[in-house]
Amino acid sequence: MLQASTPATGELRPSRFREAGPEEIDQAAALAARAGAALAGLPPRALSHLLRALAGELRRCAEELVALAEGETSLGLERLRGELVRTCSQLSLFAAGAGSGHYLEPVIRTAAGGAPDLRRLQTPLGLIAVFPAANFPLAFGVLGTDVASALAAGCPVAVKAHPGHPETSAALAQLAGRVLRGERLPEAALTLLQGASPAVGEALVDHPLVQGVSFTGSLAVGSALYRRGAERSSPIPVFAEMGSVNPVFVTEGVTREQPGAFARGLFESVNLGNGQFCTKPGLVFCPSGASADLVALLREMVTASRPRPMLSRRMAKAYAAGTLGLREWADLGTPGAGTPGGEAGFSVGPAIASTSWSRVRGHAQLWDEIFGPVAIVVACDGIEEFEEAARCMPGSLTATIHCLPGEVRGVAGLARAVAARAGRVIWRGFPTGVTVADAMQHGGPYPASTQPWATSVGDFAVRRWQRPVCYQNWPDQLLPKALQSANPLRLRRLLDGHWTRQPDRRGQA
Amino acid sequence: MLQASTPATGELRPSRFREAGPEEIDQAAALAARAGAALAGLPPRALSHLLRALAGELRRCAEELVALAEGETSLGLERLRGELVRTCSQLSLFAAGAGSGHYLEPVIRTAAGGAPDLRRLQTPLGLIAVFPAANFPLAFGVLGTDVASALAAGCPVAVKAHPGHPETSAALAQLAGRVLRGERLPEAALTLLQGASPAVGEALVDHPLVQGVSFTGSLAVGSALYRRGAERSSPIPVFAEMGSVNPVFVTEGVTREQPGAFARGLFESVNLGNGQFCTKPGLVFCPSGASADLVALLREMVTASRPRPMLSRRMAKAYAAGTLGLREWADLGTPGAGTPGGEAGFSVGPAIASTSWSRVRGHAQLWDEIFGPVAIVVACDGIEEFEEAARCMPGSLTATIHCLPGEVRGVAGLARAVAARAGRVIWRGFPTGVTVADAMQHGGPYPASTQPWATSVGDFAVRRWQRPVCYQNWPDQLLPKALQSANPLRLRRLLDGHWTRQPDRRGQA
Repeated sequence: MLQASTPATGELRPSRFREAGPEEIDQAAALAARAGAALAGLPPRALSHLLRALAGELRRCAEELVALAEGETSLGLERLRGELVRTCSQLSLFAAGAGSGHYLEPVIRTAAGGAPDLRRLQTPLGLIAVFPAANFPLAFGVLGTDVASALAAGCPVAVKAHPGHPETSAALAQLAGRVLRGERLPEAALTLLQGASPAVGEALVDHPLVQGVSFTGSLAVGSALYRRGAERSSPIPVFAEMGSVNPVFVTEGVTREQPGAFARGLFESVNLGNGQFCTKPGLVFCPSGASADLVALLREMVTASRPRPMLSRRMAKAYAAGTLGLREWADLGTPGAGTPGGEAGFSVGPAIASTSWSRVRGHAQLWDEIFGPVAIVVACDGIEEFEEAARCMPGSLTATIHCLPGEVRGVAGLARAVAARAGRVIWRGFPTGVTVADAMQHGGPYPASTQPWATSVGDFAVRRWQRPVCYQNWPDQLLPKALQSANPLRLRRLLDGHWTRQPDRRGQA
Repeated sequence: MLQASTPATGELRPSRFREAGPEEIDQAAALAARAGAALAGLPPRALSHLLRALAGELRRCAEELVALAEGETSLGLERLRGELVRTCSQLSLFAAGAGSGHYLEPVIRTAAGGAPDLRRLQTPLGLIAVFPAANFPLAFGVLGTDVASALAAGCPVAVKAHPGHPETSAALAQLAGRVLRGERLPEAALTLLQGASPAVGEALVDHPLVQGVSFTGSLAVGSALYRRGAERSSPIPVFAEMGSVNPVFVTEGVTREQPGAFARGLFESVNLGNGQFCTKPGLVFCPSGASADLVALLREMVTASRPRPMLSRRMAKAYAAGTLGLREWADLGTPGAGTPGGEAGFSVGPAIASTSWSRVRGHAQLWDEIFGPVAIVVACDGIEEFEEAARCMPGSLTATIHCLPGEVRGVAGLARAVAARAGRVIWRGFPTGVTVADAMQHGGPYPASTQPWATSVGDFAVRRWQRPVCYQNWPDQLLPKALQSANPLRLRRLLDGHWTRQPDRRGQA
């Protein structure tokens, strides 16, 4: 039996959940896959309506869901309310995109010069298994970005509830069931499986009906699931969005002219949500001359902070172990920094470590993410060491540069170097806070993710769950409506090289 | 030492090639990766010019290349001349796409309501390793669709020459070197490695600088390379386009009213290039009542055919073994059908096997590709058995339906079923012959390919070699030109939800 805890107190929650067994998983997958036919057949308007209805019902049940999530995560009501709003925005974004038909990417090349009539459309990949994140019970949860994007592609979803929030997950799945029924769609289009044992997730990834997987979490689990998907007798893509160190580079000018504002912004980003963000800035590259002052400013803020709960006892222990392990090649300052803050809950305090590039150059561990409120300030001699560090950096979700207007030219090489290794590069900001928009890229080269071409946030998240089909000389009446000559859905289509909403000539042929 | 043979005679070619050793591979990868910076920095116009120059030089050297390819493949001069034209068309298609900037997919979301300015662009993935196909020494060769699409994405390429055509490969690589020099680009941007041993390819897939792999060939090798890419300490995507059975469904009406034309077209497609096409129709589902007549017609054509050379002795043997193996559950008719046709070269004759769905239902081997000029006619009772077979079909590059206009409504369910399993569905045509166009999809669910979302032919082949980068609040002067506010390249960009070539407002902010 699975039972969650309240991180702030360490107390067990009253509800108990049965782990899904092999038969339940098999049956759920079969039902979900069958429900896929109903989703795949939906016109854009109906798919959009479903996603908007989910957002509406989420809004209606906001307080109940936020309370459940707070009980299981202790992330704070304000934060969780904001996350619920974001979850609704995500659903609305995908509703708009699905409704416009943009995601279908219709491309038509009418017959010419002996070549046949060719019509290409993005179609749903099939049943998608989603592994939600520990740190976003709503926005990366049962109705989060992965599920919403899969539904927007017309794919049914089997969600493996995160064992940290089974109650929130169950409530979200019930909500989804109500909405699906209201839309006269099979409830099995979104199926929930509970389980803390790796066997549940493994059975799901191995299931022959599952055609794609989304995971948000640790490098160890994400890369194991990715390889598992590749090792199946019929391999499937696994989109794992994993950890990242999100380096920040700060120039001498900023440390000289705006040291307080920079340190405050950085510390807030490191400490936000108790450092439990995949975009938490974990490494700060700073000019040698300014490093000591920056570290001193940050440690004042550490001292003024109180320990706060991590999402689980395991995470609190991993944070403490990771932070203490830094002592081998960094200075941890404040005695006791990074150690668990009390026995009642899973609390830990923030920590700021400091070291120098000359000391850590070549240390692979430098680039390992430590989940929680710790950052390492790395003193560098000159822009050359910044650029060298940027070139050594493994794939990262983000990389950030802080510099004054007068220093822009000097960091051009650094700017190119970070863009070559990160999915998103940020100027004079902090990496926590991922805008949900078409221009967003949340992903990056391994180990940030297992699929560098994909994003898990924003409109393009839908592409992960699609595959194109080309119809050659296909009769109009058997084509999907999006490709029919008369263009009955009035979609924008790439027709013989031009984007248009016009019907195509084959209709008159 | 590696030495190719002439399939028509079985004789060894005079040229010998040294197998690339670990040091050569390492050095080639390092040089190629370094050359990537020059490619990645090219404006769309210059990238387009490079691709057009390659096409021009190919055309200029056409006869020499065709003669070399004929010596190593015995595919026939006419076929190889056609393939060279196609190879040039592919380069021109990618030249036009790269020049227009469409491949960059620029998306801009200017700052609003507290959200930052976000600019998203497709960027080159990095060094790509390409494994060309045996059966297309030019169109899937050293300057074929995989290499051309990688260059169009701005990626350098290390090509592992197919051991069946080392001379053609070397001539193509030299040609590319001349063109790159002429464009003042580093020759290492396209590097050739020779080798017949698996170790050469494995070292390339394992090389830490390689960021993506393209392979065209057998299921066994393709899926092994795919898993190898996933098992690296830093996994990379492997796009393997592998075999396919390309089922054809023919209705009672067609077999009654146009039996000769259908049989002729089918046999030509089966026998084209001696059946050495990944889109060769391998299975023909036919109404029971018409099956005997169709088989008789096809076997008349078999009898009138002469044995022709396969690309290698190994392939000729595999063809013979595969065809003879059909005897377990199909009738092979003509004695000696499918056996090698002579000791001089690697020749084999075509074969038509026949069986029934009731006999093979549940046989996994039914769906195994046999490379070479053999097809299996499967007699089915009614549309229900057609639909059942379509639902059992593993992922396929193509699926084809032949029916009369009056029968269209009756095959609607079959049409949906084949579209759910194939990358391209064809109406009243034959699957061999892949049009190079934006609307093409050449790929499909496993085992047709390892990445169902990707195509290896047509404009979208470029997407395999890109990853998006999002620039957040990035200063205009450090942005790639494609994203700068003034839109100096005059690209079509998705700006705040609308496609436009206009500059964006940030320029005035």
